[in-house]
Amino acid sequence: MKVDFWFSENQNEDVKFGVRVKSHLFSIESKYQKIDIFDTEFFGRVMILDGCFMITEKDEFMYQEMLSHPAMVSHPDPKDILIIGGGDGGVAREVLRYPVKTVDLVEIDEDVITAAKTYLPSIAASFADSRLKVYNMDAFEFVDSERSYDVILVDSTDPIGFAASLFSDVFYMKSKKILKKGGIIATQSGSPFMNPEFIKKAYRGLNGHFKTVKPYLSFVPSYPSGMWSYIMASDESIEKHRDFTGRYVNEGIYRSCFNLPEFVKKVLENQ
Amino acid sequence: MKVDFWFSENQNEDVKFGVRVKSHLFSIESKYQKIDIFDTEFFGRVMILDGCFMITEKDEFMYQEMLSHPAMVSHPDPKDILIIGGGDGGVAREVLRYPVKTVDLVEIDEDVITAAKTYLPSIAASFADSRLKVYNMDAFEFVDSERSYDVILVDSTDPIGFAASLFSDVFYMKSKKILKKGGIIATQSGSPFMNPEFIKKAYRGLNGHFKTVKPYLSFVPSYPSGMWSYIMASDESIEKHRDFTGRYVNEGIYRSCFNLPEFVKKVLENQ
Repeated sequence: MKVDFWFSENQNEDVKFGVRVKSHLFSIESKYQKIDIFDTEFFGRVMILDGCFMITEKDEFMYQEMLSHPAMVSHPDPKDILIIGGGDGGVAREVLRYPVKTVDLVEIDEDVITAAKTYLPSIAASFADSRLKVYNMDAFEFVDSERSYDVILVDSTDPIGFAASLFSDVFYMKSKKILKKGGIIATQSGSPFMNPEFIKKAYRGLNGHFKTVKPYLSFVPSYPSGMWSYIMASDESIEKHRDFTGRYVNEGIYRSCFNLPEFVKKVLENQ
Repeated sequence: MKVDFWFSENQNEDVKFGVRVKSHLFSIESKYQKIDIFDTEFFGRVMILDGCFMITEKDEFMYQEMLSHPAMVSHPDPKDILIIGGGDGGVAREVLRYPVKTVDLVEIDEDVITAAKTYLPSIAASFADSRLKVYNMDAFEFVDSERSYDVILVDSTDPIGFAASLFSDVFYMKSKKILKKGGIIATQSGSPFMNPEFIKKAYRGLNGHFKTVKPYLSFVPSYPSGMWSYIMASDESIEKHRDFTGRYVNEGIYRSCFNLPEFVKKVLENQ
């Protein structure tokens, strides 16, 4: 018999999304946030940060693939990769499918990584790869480093609290400095339906520093509205250089994900 | 101050979606189903049938436009249109934007139309158009008629209860008989993520009767998973004949909506 045990996310103060829970596997107040892992009936295991869905086993592939592959297939030769956030390991897993040389992952909260390794092994398996190096520090400081990258993927929480600086003008400027020639940065930018201010802010910021800026969309059912946005930017033109088919991405998705519904185009035009 | 008054849909037995309610405007047990209208904080007014979201003022345009326009822009000269269901008037509103001659709307439940006219006037305004005729009868019987159509749009509830026959093999056969040469049928086919059996059944059924069958997707945030599917079918090839830009649809959306994520392609291949 199923027990009437639910976790609900308040997607905003007037909308909530609930999933039936089999068991509450883990809960901790880290230095930065509250981390919970539930085993749920429909979505499998889920990681919740400060009450918000970060990852569910059932639909994580849609988000991880769409943040990673459009940039990875668009770079002529992606060897050195920087992941900002991404403490569950999912984006690293996707990036490591390519013959990359180094992947630096800057996750401020090492408790997120520990929880993922323990409870979400299919996502966190990437941490065992010798090409991956983890830095537990503030990404805003890390991007002052001397290193440089072909691709930077910003897989952070939303631009509130400690992650706000990762969507600032200064952060985009610093990121550009550590991109090699022809380098590409891609960031998640929230739901244009539930929170249009987020994508507007990221789009405006990237537009101020890069010649080519391409917003795109994918479905992510466990995220607010199911409609999620990302933005890719570079100082070169962005064109596809190779094929990669995953569980979400394929040739048709690369061709179509940049075609935005009219109301999303309007959100970006009305800056 | 906002009152803690919520309506929740059980999207399945393990997932629910809740919206904060300002007021419960209307409730009736019709001959066919329970009809509720709520005024909500985030989605505006919403129509609920048997506990499921049918329409919200905030995102109805995404569904109505995507069920209507891909077929309407793909027919060489759409003059006579049949809408199956569609009692809120939204699909009729979209279709009447074209220079059509007649629109027949077959809604079994006249109480749905009355509720929409009273509480959702921006959606139901189409009922005042003299080109529109309403038939309150079972669409499965209506499709035996002598009339014939350029475009048939199936805007029904999901294939359970009295709407089940609208996704049957016999219904698709009958629909084909009343399509004129070059005619196009389009149907909604549920969420491939939450309920893949629905799109599989509709796809299999249409494939059995039509030469060209094209599934496509759009976002609809208030529907389960936010990922919604539709299928267009015809005995001719389907090509775009004109432009129409709405709040969701535009040139890029027509080009891209048929490109399915890899897991949706797999759902349709594994018949």
